[in-house]
Amino acid sequence: MVAETLPGYRGKLRELLTHAKVGVGDVVSVNKGSDTYEGTLLPRVENSDEWHLIIKQKTGYNIGIAYSDDLRVEKIGEAVKPEFHPPPLPPVKEGLPKVSIISTGGTIASRVDYVTGGVYAAMSSRDLLSIVPELADIAQIEADILYSVFSENINSEHWEGMAKRVAEKIKQGADGIVITHGTDTMGYSTAALSLAIQNLPIPVIFVGSQRSSDRPSSDSATNLVAVVNAAAHAPFAEVVLGMHEGTGDDSIIFHPGAKVRKCHSSARYAFQTVNASPIARYKDGRTEMIAEHYRPRQDSEPMIRNRFEKKVALLKFHPNFDPLIVDTLVNAGFKGIVFEGTGLGHVSESCYDAISHADKAGVLMGMTSQCIWGRVNMNVYSMGRELTRRGVEPLEDMLPETAYVKMMWSLGNSETPEEARRLLKENVAGEYNPRTPYTRRKP
Amino acid sequence: MVAETLPGYRGKLRELLTHAKVGVGDVVSVNKGSDTYEGTLLPRVENSDEWHLIIKQKTGYNIGIAYSDDLRVEKIGEAVKPEFHPPPLPPVKEGLPKVSIISTGGTIASRVDYVTGGVYAAMSSRDLLSIVPELADIAQIEADILYSVFSENINSEHWEGMAKRVAEKIKQGADGIVITHGTDTMGYSTAALSLAIQNLPIPVIFVGSQRSSDRPSSDSATNLVAVVNAAAHAPFAEVVLGMHEGTGDDSIIFHPGAKVRKCHSSARYAFQTVNASPIARYKDGRTEMIAEHYRPRQDSEPMIRNRFEKKVALLKFHPNFDPLIVDTLVNAGFKGIVFEGTGLGHVSESCYDAISHADKAGVLMGMTSQCIWGRVNMNVYSMGRELTRRGVEPLEDMLPETAYVKMMWSLGNSETPEEARRLLKENVAGEYNPRTPYTRRKP
Repeated sequence: MVAETLPGYRGKLRELLTHAKVGVGDVVSVNKGSDTYEGTLLPRVENSDEWHLIIKQKTGYNIGIAYSDDLRVEKIGEAVKPEFHPPPLPPVKEGLPKVSIISTGGTIASRVDYVTGGVYAAMSSRDLLSIVPELADIAQIEADILYSVFSENINSEHWEGMAKRVAEKIKQGADGIVITHGTDTMGYSTAALSLAIQNLPIPVIFVGSQRSSDRPSSDSATNLVAVVNAAAHAPFAEVVLGMHEGTGDDSIIFHPGAKVRKCHSSARYAFQTVNASPIARYKDGRTEMIAEHYRPRQDSEPMIRNRFEKKVALLKFHPNFDPLIVDTLVNAGFKGIVFEGTGLGHVSESCYDAISHADKAGVLMGMTSQCIWGRVNMNVYSMGRELTRRGVEPLEDMLPETAYVKMMWSLGNSETPEEARRLLKENVAGEYNPRTPYTRRKP
Repeated sequence: MVAETLPGYRGKLRELLTHAKVGVGDVVSVNKGSDTYEGTLLPRVENSDEWHLIIKQKTGYNIGIAYSDDLRVEKIGEAVKPEFHPPPLPPVKEGLPKVSIISTGGTIASRVDYVTGGVYAAMSSRDLLSIVPELADIAQIEADILYSVFSENINSEHWEGMAKRVAEKIKQGADGIVITHGTDTMGYSTAALSLAIQNLPIPVIFVGSQRSSDRPSSDSATNLVAVVNAAAHAPFAEVVLGMHEGTGDDSIIFHPGAKVRKCHSSARYAFQTVNASPIARYKDGRTEMIAEHYRPRQDSEPMIRNRFEKKVALLKFHPNFDPLIVDTLVNAGFKGIVFEGTGLGHVSESCYDAISHADKAGVLMGMTSQCIWGRVNMNVYSMGRELTRRGVEPLEDMLPETAYVKMMWSLGNSETPEEARRLLKENVAGEYNPRTPYTRRKP
């Protein structure tokens, strides 16, 4: 039956594959222009586009190849197709805490297809429990899909939606919330939620995965077990990000939402707390607090302030930086600009005029450091004071990425420019550390 | 004599100070608008502007206060004025290696004024040896001032000038070269020089200082002794950056010029080698190699390729990034754009059209990761391939800052777009690491 041989394939691509007598699970050689790819043909998910075929390469990576008129596909082998028996769902254990898992996309929100070993992009409660059945022993899990978005496409509208959904789940009685998210922009989203939902009664824990669950080195399951455990039992009521602490599977570290950054493109311990300390660590089946001061679980009504101004930019300064970019943003009606300056918070003198112009046009400006670690200090050198005099707010030890989100939030949740400036400088969610710890960082 | 009471002060400011009967060395209270500053009045250097008075505050920091009509100055005390006896210059020891020190500005290129404790912005051989007389036991020092620029104002013209000066000094028989530089953009300059001067016979060592030499915690002297020693004796012939390895004064670490980044705004160990290993370490009076492979000192003719295209930008992607910025650069005739994408090298789909447009307009584009550590891999996800198809070159594990400099250099030193693209991808000065070490980074 054709319908079963090529699930998800449609249109011209389906014609081509049918003509080549290949089906999902076959090992194929795909030729396009001067490139040749080999691997196992994977099925497409429902509603996927009809212009890409997906193969799983020997490396374990999946690759999509776009249809073109010169595309050639040849069957070069047959994959072993294991029989699929969906595992029985573990019974819900009534007395356990209720944890709500909100899926937004990314590598962790994926499940292995048992026919082909391929990876799908969205994850239901059933999928989740079938991958990590031990979750049912930790909490009563309720999982639903809010978005299915690769994290580079996450924007402030998604942040608004996440905050809204979190509030709903709290209202419905969740004892803890887990948000699965692609890792690329997860740090921006944790900063956004830290600001957008305040006065939390329970933990809100973001989690991602650096390796998809079909790879032996996947961190999906260990990360999920840890964050669900913390969501169910940990004593804090803050927005945090839980991921591998190191190369081993033995500990998951919880970073404060407004002080965390992705600092490695591929390692499982990609995230780091910057200019602060992690909040807690999951190890040997339990979560231990690291932070001395944190917001404990409590009976409180969450407050939603989830508007984000979109006309804001984050500009990284560099030698020969062209102030034309600042002028362009001002002329396009931008309301805020965060600079990633050098060192203690500098940009070149050649930017001063454009900055004065932006200030006069009412653009709110803030300064962070591209050093990432440490804080800006715009009083040490006269050039720093030249900038503050032109309206640029020193944003202390705030991460550039958090400062950008904070600027959007400050402008989105205020009535006047003065109020926005005041909000920007206020320490709302631990985005400022009163005293940046003098941490030693060694490679 | 007025000339001695207010050295360097001119115009209205001089009138004001004369009228207030204060002189250099006096403790003054300065009132401007709602702000009041207290400190010791410092002299101005020759050729400085006439609109700022400088005081040394109790914190040890100097601060410049701009003249305005409402400026009020009052003498509140008298500073102890130590007598100044310029130390005798140590004799030049003939048999020692010749080290040329090229000063470009920054905190290290400053000397303490013995009358006031103030800090001056440029440093001659005599100044240098009077601060750190032990240098005369290490090498025959010849120091001269190329620029006196705060490092946020350094641009590609300065890089061109530095490369030219280095070549001259090599021709004149230097056994090693030290370039003093402000730390803010020193990493950009070391990348630039690594590319602009190849085939080196001797070491070229950049050095800076995170604390000025009038502060007890200054790293000026220890850094200078170490880099002059390495310039005189170390076996490598590469462009490197030498700064404190840790919080202590006991070791100075040499980072490869194209793989180093300022990662802390104020710590003395601000610089880190990223995605590679340091080259050498100075400890207990000698330099030991760390790198297994390096270019040794040799009898070679340096090759200068010091043209940098100015119409290049480094753009950091973030959620809600507005592709208008890309369009603006294309329309302004920019020749190259380096993106700091997320994770393995992504930007949002909303940028695809602008990127296609830039590609069609002949703009050379490259992708780096804002994670900083790790490398981009644009083959894992389909979105990466969407970008490479639009002409964006994956720049592997190159630092975003280095990639920006490399793009300027590639465009500046090629005749055709194809040649520029080829140069961009070629590993010219160790800017690519064939295998990024899987380094564990702990706070």
